[in-house]
Amino acid sequence: MAAAEEGFRPLEEESLVDYIKSTPALLVQLGEQLEGLAIKEVGDGNLNFVYIVTSPGGSFVIKQVQYTGLIIEQSTYCFVVQTCIKLMITSKSHLICLATQALPYIRCIGTSWPMTKERAYFEMLALKEHGRLCPNHVPEVYHFDRPMSLIAMRYLKPPHIILRKGLIAGIEYPLLAQHMSDFMARTLFFTSLLYHSTLEHRKAVAEFCGNVELCRLTEQVVFSDPYKVAQYNHWTSPHLDHDAEAIRDDDILKIEVAGLKSMFCERAQALIHGDLHTGSVMVTNDSTQVIDPEFAFYGPMGFDIGAFLGNLILAFFSQDGHANKDNDREAYKRWILKMLEETWNLFHQKFVALWNENFDGHGEAYLADIFNKPELQLLAQKKYMTDLFHDSIGFGAAKMIRRIVGVAHVEDFESIADGSQRALCERRALDCAKKLLKERRKFESISQVISVIEEISAR
Amino acid sequence: MAAAEEGFRPLEEESLVDYIKSTPALLVQLGEQLEGLAIKEVGDGNLNFVYIVTSPGGSFVIKQVQYTGLIIEQSTYCFVVQTCIKLMITSKSHLICLATQALPYIRCIGTSWPMTKERAYFEMLALKEHGRLCPNHVPEVYHFDRPMSLIAMRYLKPPHIILRKGLIAGIEYPLLAQHMSDFMARTLFFTSLLYHSTLEHRKAVAEFCGNVELCRLTEQVVFSDPYKVAQYNHWTSPHLDHDAEAIRDDDILKIEVAGLKSMFCERAQALIHGDLHTGSVMVTNDSTQVIDPEFAFYGPMGFDIGAFLGNLILAFFSQDGHANKDNDREAYKRWILKMLEETWNLFHQKFVALWNENFDGHGEAYLADIFNKPELQLLAQKKYMTDLFHDSIGFGAAKMIRRIVGVAHVEDFESIADGSQRALCERRALDCAKKLLKERRKFESISQVISVIEEISAR
Ligand SMILES: Nc1ncnc2c1ncn2[C@@H]1O[C@H](COP(=O)(O)OP(=O)(O)O)[C@@H](O)[C@H]1O
Ligand SMILES: Nc1ncnc2c1ncn2[C@@H]1O[C@H](COP(=O)(O)OP(=O)(O)O)[C@@H](O)[C@H]1O
Ligand SMILES: [Mg+2]
Ligand SMILES: [Mg+2]
Ligand SMILES: [Mg+2]
Ligand SMILES: [Mg+2]
Ligand SMILES: [Mg+2]
Repeated sequence: MAAAEEGFRPLEEESLVDYIKSTPALLVQLGEQLEGLAIKEVGDGNLNFVYIVTSPGGSFVIKQVQYTGLIIEQSTYCFVVQTCIKLMITSKSHLICLATQALPYIRCIGTSWPMTKERAYFEMLALKEHGRLCPNHVPEVYHFDRPMSLIAMRYLKPPHIILRKGLIAGIEYPLLAQHMSDFMARTLFFTSLLYHSTLEHRKAVAEFCGNVELCRLTEQVVFSDPYKVAQYNHWTSPHLDHDAEAIRDDDILKIEVAGLKSMFCERAQALIHGDLHTGSVMVTNDSTQVIDPEFAFYGPMGFDIGAFLGNLILAFFSQDGHANKDNDREAYKRWILKMLEETWNLFHQKFVALWNENFDGHGEAYLADIFNKPELQLLAQKKYMTDLFHDSIGFGAAKMIRRIVGVAHVEDFESIADGSQRALCERRALDCAKKLLKERRKFESISQVISVIEEISAR
Repeated sequence: MAAAEEGFRPLEEESLVDYIKSTPALLVQLGEQLEGLAIKEVGDGNLNFVYIVTSPGGSFVIKQVQYTGLIIEQSTYCFVVQTCIKLMITSKSHLICLATQALPYIRCIGTSWPMTKERAYFEMLALKEHGRLCPNHVPEVYHFDRPMSLIAMRYLKPPHIILRKGLIAGIEYPLLAQHMSDFMARTLFFTSLLYHSTLEHRKAVAEFCGNVELCRLTEQVVFSDPYKVAQYNHWTSPHLDHDAEAIRDDDILKIEVAGLKSMFCERAQALIHGDLHTGSVMVTNDSTQVIDPEFAFYGPMGFDIGAFLGNLILAFFSQDGHANKDNDREAYKRWILKMLEETWNLFHQKFVALWNENFDGHGEAYLADIFNKPELQLLAQKKYMTDLFHDSIGFGAAKMIRRIVGVAHVEDFESIADGSQRALCERRALDCAKKLLKERRKFESISQVISVIEEISAR
């Protein structure tokens, strides 16, 4: 058994108390005060346990990977991943959480890939790097225990809630675009070759290559399964049966998605979060915090930007399903579109501003000695940002599609009880995504994307 | 001092004998026969020593990196690299070789990059991988000594000569296109995601990230220096003064080259040789052998294909400078164009054939379940090959430009004694490269590239 697994013990409420007592870094966060200690499991997924730990002296959150350290063969591994995914979609109960303990954090036998490089390690690395680059929007890491695959971080106290839930509830967050554009501009710019020397870059790329298993999960569920018959694909049936089939028969779409998949697998453009949907963002009226970067690696920037924008578009198309006689959600839909527009435009503005501020720096993609005139610098930036925009639209659309006909759906639609109503909303989102993905290179501005959304929404 | 440096001793003829005597793997190659042992240094560069070792019982070649293991600071490093490059271009004498012993194989202080990962290690890895994939066209590795940065490999006996020298001499190699297309199709296909699982791929990518310093040399001399005022740029002067300046002032060209540079730095498409010019190929009438992959890493395939095709085009444009009353070189020019055409077309054919043969394999870029109809498979391949063609033209053109106005030139032109004549040849090559690079996306076949070459040649 590899080193990383030797020290692993899955914790629950009781054993966690002992763990805290014996961990100075955690005691400090509680002001050494253990009287009145309260622990609550809040994990909403089936991949990790999340505990909120509070005492009168302080608080923190503990996130621990679920696994038993079992080493299994490749074929078993595939079966187990499938089963896990199935469980993820069929139930949210705690029992299921326990049942899935032995799941996909298990390396295939027969590779010499370092066994100590588990995903909690990469989540911690990314949280720290994101926190360094954008401290206002990322919880601090207080403690990391590698053998235990355990991270302690700042507790994002109520009224922080998961953004997706806020969007379903119809709540406006006035600073959302401002904050998310900040997070994306800073984390992506400063980990790209616009800021990095190629020496720093390749070193960081190599390190994050170790997070390959989570990349593979994305490759499968985002870029492959929705485009083929796959056991755990599902959709609102029978309403969308034809739509799902049409996706599997759409040659142009499949070619375009394959191009995006190759970009995802090959292009180390920046350190990306890797799972930047609205379920990885916690918000209040004046705070926006990005959590859960366990899929982080060096990949194409557009994958993060697209994840966020694409999930906003999903939220938009789900609104009709949440309308009732008190609230038709029309104003809220306009607000979502405004967020979409502002997020991209502010991102663009801030990213280019960072580029300008650092034009003479050690970033090696565009040397100041070569791009030695303002108009040339402008031309280079225009081309770069246009390509990035198209990538973002493409990845965003791919993320939309997989949430409707793939294995893992979003609460935005799942919480619409009526199947016909849900299917109607989903079909519009699907049609929009297909058009955006296939025609993305034609778009010159986010307002053109919004026109497409409005047009499909008005059908 | 790092482990790799501890055991390093630069060898010369005498100490090499002792080294051979104490190395069983080498003795075996000589049939244990040391009587009549002969050693000859034949390195043509200033980066490595190459010794041919023969005895009546056998033979091999020893290649050893030149370095002293000195650890220096970053600023010194930059100075030293510049100086080394200067020496490379100003002299070929053995004395200079000795003077450059302390040169750029030195890591920057202050990084924790593993010090043991020197370039000889990557050259050995690549030689072995290429040899495994394409044994007919790569010398076997007999022995590798990591602390000594030393590789022993099969001696490519006379009449093997460096292809570049054959091209200058006007010699036709009937199997050249056949062999080179074989080498490129096999080494590139089998190390791409068309054959690799993403698990294998990321693991290999991470390993070769360690060869970052040689990548940085390429980034500087191919993608940066020719487009700015740089100390060691040079060209046939005053004839090409204006042409060199025009390159530094060509905004469109600079934007395009920056795009290629980013692709070089970001895109881990396949294990590429990294230096596949006509000086890295040894030939006879019926043998073609690829040596010297010390720049190998996971990069864009087009960089290798372009290097080879671009250097053939340089050879073509240099022919007028080698014409004399006995041989106007016209037939030879046609033969070079035929090689250009055949190399790409055969590469295309073989690469697609490998893809078809392995369509149901473990390659993860295009899954058989998704690309589930012959016409869809065809469509995917057409798009892939078109993109690869455009990348190859772009990288090939960039490699041509840097050989005319950058730091390191090619013997094809350098051996033309008359400056005016040389400048005439070089200007045509330069004009051709600029056109190819900027308009590459318009080309649909190699015959269209050849038309451009012929047109410029007829001016
Ligand atoms: N720092 C935190 N503060 C408050 N709640 C948190 C924190 N981190 C996670 N949570 C809660 O736990 C849930 C799951 O955490 P997350 O990191 O997204 O785990 P998973 O990778 O399993 O999705 C989140 O949706 C959120 O409700
Ligand atoms: N295996 C070999 N057999 C015969 N000659 C070789 C062999 N390897 C290298 N050489 C000769 O040594 C020269 C330099 O080798 P190369 O590997 O290209 O080193 P460098 O990296 O210094 O360019 C080649 O141009 C060729 O003439
Ligand atoms: Mg979750
Ligand atoms: Mg989460
Ligand atoms: Mg997660
Ligand atoms: Mg060489
Ligand atoms: Mg070399």
